[in-house]
This record gives sequence, structure tokens and C-alpha cells, in this order.
Amino acid sequence: MSKRIGKRTIRFEHTIGIRSAAAVTGKKESEGPLSTYFDQTFTDDTLGEATWEKAESRLQTTAASIALQKTGLDSHSVDVILAGDLLNQCISSTFGLRSLEIPFLGQYGACSTMAQTLLVGSILTDACAADRVMAVTSSHFCSAERQFRLPIEYGGQRNLTAQWTVTGAGAAILERDYPTCIITEGTIGKIVDMEIKDACNMGAAMAPAAADTIAAYFQDTGSCPSDFDLILTGDLGHIGSELLIELLQKQNYVIADRHDDCGKKIFYREEQDVHAGGSGCGCCASVFCSEIWQKLCAGELTNILFIATGALMSPTSSMQGESIPSIAHLLHIRHQ
Amino acid sequence: MSKRIGKRTIRFEHTIGIRSAAAVTGKKESEGPLSTYFDQTFTDDTLGEATWEKAESRLQTTAASIALQKTGLDSHSVDVILAGDLLNQCISSTFGLRSLEIPFLGQYGACSTMAQTLLVGSILTDACAADRVMAVTSSHFCSAERQFRLPIEYGGQRNLTAQWTVTGAGAAILERDYPTCIITEGTIGKIVDMEIKDACNMGAAMAPAAADTIAAYFQDTGSCPSDFDLILTGDLGHIGSELLIELLQKQNYVIADRHDDCGKKIFYREEQDVHAGGSGCGCCASVFCSEIWQKLCAGELTNILFIATGALMSPTSSMQGESIPSIAHLLHIRHQ
Repeated sequence: MSKRIGKRTIRFEHTIGIRSAAAVTGKKESEGPLSTYFDQTFTDDTLGEATWEKAESRLQTTAASIALQKTGLDSHSVDVILAGDLLNQCISSTFGLRSLEIPFLGQYGACSTMAQTLLVGSILTDACAADRVMAVTSSHFCSAERQFRLPIEYGGQRNLTAQWTVTGAGAAILERDYPTCIITEGTIGKIVDMEIKDACNMGAAMAPAAADTIAAYFQDTGSCPSDFDLILTGDLGHIGSELLIELLQKQNYVIADRHDDCGKKIFYREEQDVHAGGSGCGCCASVFCSEIWQKLCAGELTNILFIATGALMSPTSSMQGESIPSIAHLLHIRHQ
Repeated sequence: MSKRIGKRTIRFEHTIGIRSAAAVTGKKESEGPLSTYFDQTFTDDTLGEATWEKAESRLQTTAASIALQKTGLDSHSVDVILAGDLLNQCISSTFGLRSLEIPFLGQYGACSTMAQTLLVGSILTDACAADRVMAVTSSHFCSAERQFRLPIEYGGQRNLTAQWTVTGAGAAILERDYPTCIITEGTIGKIVDMEIKDACNMGAAMAPAAADTIAAYFQDTGSCPSDFDLILTGDLGHIGSELLIELLQKQNYVIADRHDDCGKKIFYREEQDVHAGGSGCGCCASVFCSEIWQKLCAGELTNILFIATGALMSPTSSMQGESIPSIAHLLHIRHQ
């Protein structure tokens, strides 16, 4: 049975291992620093599909298939899929995963979805409500641009605080009593709204949510930054990461020497002209399900915090003058 | 600890009671057959807000507040909120519930959201990952019409198979070891796609998903329709309900004498000109969190199945020629 630690942290009783993980990405990501870690990359971002939305669905289908292949199991060995994405009504997930015929619980946490699906999956697995759970998410630069911003054909100039939506998907399979890459604790995020309204500066909108969840975890568990090899946030990018470090410093948590961010890691900032870094559900999904999972399995990372952040807005809410509420969910993951 | 029964059903170890529930609706719903059961109704569907989306958020805020008031607890007594809705990026939930400052896990199940949030909430509560969980969802006729169909000012003629999106919200508070209105089992739905493409006939698209989940529950548990007072589906409406009865009849499950549907119950079909009945996340949320919860508490209902169905499509997927994948999640709920 799970155990509540403090107000928001859950400690798992069982050994919840990430048995398998897979990441697939598009062309730009394959030219970035993490290319060798990805399971598959596509040089044609349409993936042979007629629309960007169908291409994004195929990213999920592919990541889920590869994650399954690595286990040698068939899809019926997975009891529940937890998945979500940024597209309206989460169609990338529902269309991308419908053929698997696995019981499905759609999750919406915007770019925090990879952490949310892993966290809810850990609770289900620990509770014996499922023996094996798959967590999946994705994003696609072109489907996100036209839904959230402007048609890509418009060629609009991007703000220097803007981030570049990653074309990619990640899938991970959790299994109870699997002894490698173990999720030991999770902290559920609160909606934090600092009244930031600039949809071209998501890092600034999301950093307070990350700081809130990380501080809550430290308080709940009595741990401190130096207990961990790596404190890895989802897609704060270069600007949001600086703000997070400052916000936690004010609470006397010094994380700068062990913090990194998936939005910083996935692209070469200058050479790839990505301004403030990568973003989108697929950003931390493809980084976590490739380099991070592989290094945790190999023991190159032994004890990390993974915190994915999400901006819970829509183009409609922004047009109606609303601010950008944000959220961050946290996982504590150990080599073994 | 939860126990898996068969492939898809979860039996809860603890007594997971629905301690409180509240339903709020708009004007048309207040003129329907269930008006006396609702906690609050609004004669002005704007709820005093400048936009339909903000009005829908206020429905959630109000339902959550009333559900909390009934317990006499403050919001910090709730460990987790599970919520979602039909609006792009689920903004009705995130904006409607942000002020509560409760750890938040966004759920996306389209119109199955009320059952999904209650089901995931039961797992979290049973696992001791939370002591108390709130499940919330909503829909609004005007925000749904303009997002999924046409601006209401256009005055488009509605197909006779079309359903009328309910303006309403429901909120329920689950508590471990609370001895009334007990959720004993849940079955997680699979995505079922029978290649139906008519977005004006959601009942037909969703009925196969409901049949699939209900049959799975009967098979997993060895139960049969006559074991229950009521088998209540979410928003299949008049047409989908007939199809469900037929589909289950083919598997030798006769439910007609104890089946009802929230989309049939909430409006007077002819007098209120709703064609095939009510729909939307708020349909079964407002019916379940009012009449059904009250009758379960009073012992007028003693043993029911509640199955909410969702259509996992978007206007974009329909415009791209896609079919309508659907899902249904089931709960078995007893008076005590």
C-alpha cells in the first residue's frame, strides 16, 4: 500500500520498476545532442501521414510499439495505458493508441503529462490495480504551432523567450517488483498561477509551479538537493530554468550544481536556433525515455528527481485575457 | 490493497464512500424532470461571466464549493482533485479549480470523465495515496456548441440523432472508510472504434464502448443484470440506449428492464425539443451527483452500475475523415 509522506508526497511500498522505455523523435531532434539515445528518428516529420495530427499519433504508436518490443511481451500483458497530449481532446493519444486494445485512462497535464502518467501509473501498480502500466505522451512542432500559434506557412518571427515544440514521443512500461530504475516516491502538483500572461514565455509561467512542487517534496521527505545526482525539470528551457534556480534559492534550496532541464538538453541552443529551448509533452518524454532511462538502468545515474511542468492554458483562455496557470508533478527515481 | 478481478475489473479493499456530492445546472436543465434534485440552478447561463468558457469554469467552482460545504471541511482536507472537461486543454477545470490549491490530476475521458475521475479517485483512496479525493467535471451548451459545431448565433438546424449538451457540473468527494454510497468495484474502459463517423450521432458511436465494458464487468465478476437495481449509462441518449440494449442482448445480457441513461433522464424529450437527449460531461455528472447520489444515500437505490461513455474525437479529427473512437468506464456502487 502507498504511504502518504507529508501533505503531497506518496511513497510506494512495492518496487515499481521502469522495465522498458522508448523515445522517437523528428529530424531537428535527431540533429541535437541526444540523437544517439533515441530509439528511432524520422527524417520526414510527416511520418508518411497526410496531416500533422496523424503524424503525431504515429509517433505515439511507434514509441509504444518499441517499448513493448523491448519487453518481449504482447500488448495484452499491459493492464492499463495512461496517455495524453497537447492536441485538442488529446487526439494524438486516442488515435495513436486505439489499436492496442488496452484499457485506457486519458490524462491531461499539458507538458507535465510524462511525469503525471508515470506517477498515476506508479500508484495503480503499487495498489495492485494493475500489474503493468504503460505511460505515453507526445508533441509535434507542426501540430502545436498551428493549434497554439499560427500556421507554419505564415512564417511568423518568434520571440526570444519562446521555446521550440519538440517533435517526439516517449513511452515507458512500469512493472511491480521489477528491480531496475525504480520509482520510489511521487509528489502531485498544485495549480500555481503567478498571473503571467505572456504565452511566448512559458518557462516563466511554469517555473513557480516547479519550485512549489520541488520545495514541497523536500519538506515532505526531509531531503535536500545534495541527496540527488540530478534534479531534472521537464521543459522550463533556458529562461525558466534560471527562474527556478532563483526561486528555490530564496527558500535556501541550492540546486544549480545538479539541475538540468530537458528543454535545454534536447537542442543545441545557438546552432539550432531554438531561442529559449525545447518544449511540449514530447520534450521531456523523449529525453526521459531515452538518455535518462538508459543511464538509470546502467547506473550512470543513481538517484534523481524528475519534475515535468505544464502550462494549463489554451489559445481561447489567452484570447480572453486569462493568465497561465501551471503545474508540476515530481518523481523520485533510483538506479535500484 | 485493490484486487484485480479478471482482466479489467478492480475490487476495492477499503470502504470507499461518496461522502458528498453536488450538482449545479443551467436554465434548461432546471426546467427538466430532475430540477428538484439539483443543488443550485442558474437562470442566466452566463453565470454573470463575460464568456461561455468562464461561465463553465464557474459551474465547476460552484459544484466543488457546495460539495465541500456539505462535508463541513475546508479545501485543504481534500488531498487530490481529479477533474477534466470537453474544452480544448480542459480549461474549464484548470481555471475553475485553481483557487482551491489542492493537488490536481487532470483527466481526459470526454463525456466519460465523471466515471473516470470517480474510478481513479477510488484507486487513489483505496491505495492510501489519498485519504479524500474530489472528482469534478462540467459541460456548457454554449461553449460546446461553438467549439464542436457552429456558433450558436448561426442558428443551425440540428439533426434528429443529435444530443443537447447539458449546462451543468457535478462534484463528488470520496473518502476511505466512509460507510455510505460505497464504490466497491470499477472497470476501466478500452478504446472501441466501430468506424462510425457521424458526429451528429454520438449515441451510436458510444454504445459499443458501453456494451464492451458492461460485458467485461459481467464476465470478470460472474454477475448478471438482475443483480442490480439500476444499470445507468452516461449520455447515450435515446438512440444510443436502444443500441446498447440490442448489443448486450446479442451476448445474452438482458438489461432493458433496469437500464436507464442520464441523457434520457435529464430532459423532457418532446417538450424540451432535445432530439436524442442530453450529452456532455456535465450530463451524467449532474444526474449522478444529484438524484442518483441522493437515492443511494437514502437507500432508494441499493446496488447500481454507473457507466459513463465518451467520444474521443475532436473537430479536427472529424474534418480529417477520422471515425469516432469511444470509451466507457464502469463503477459498481452500493447503498452501504
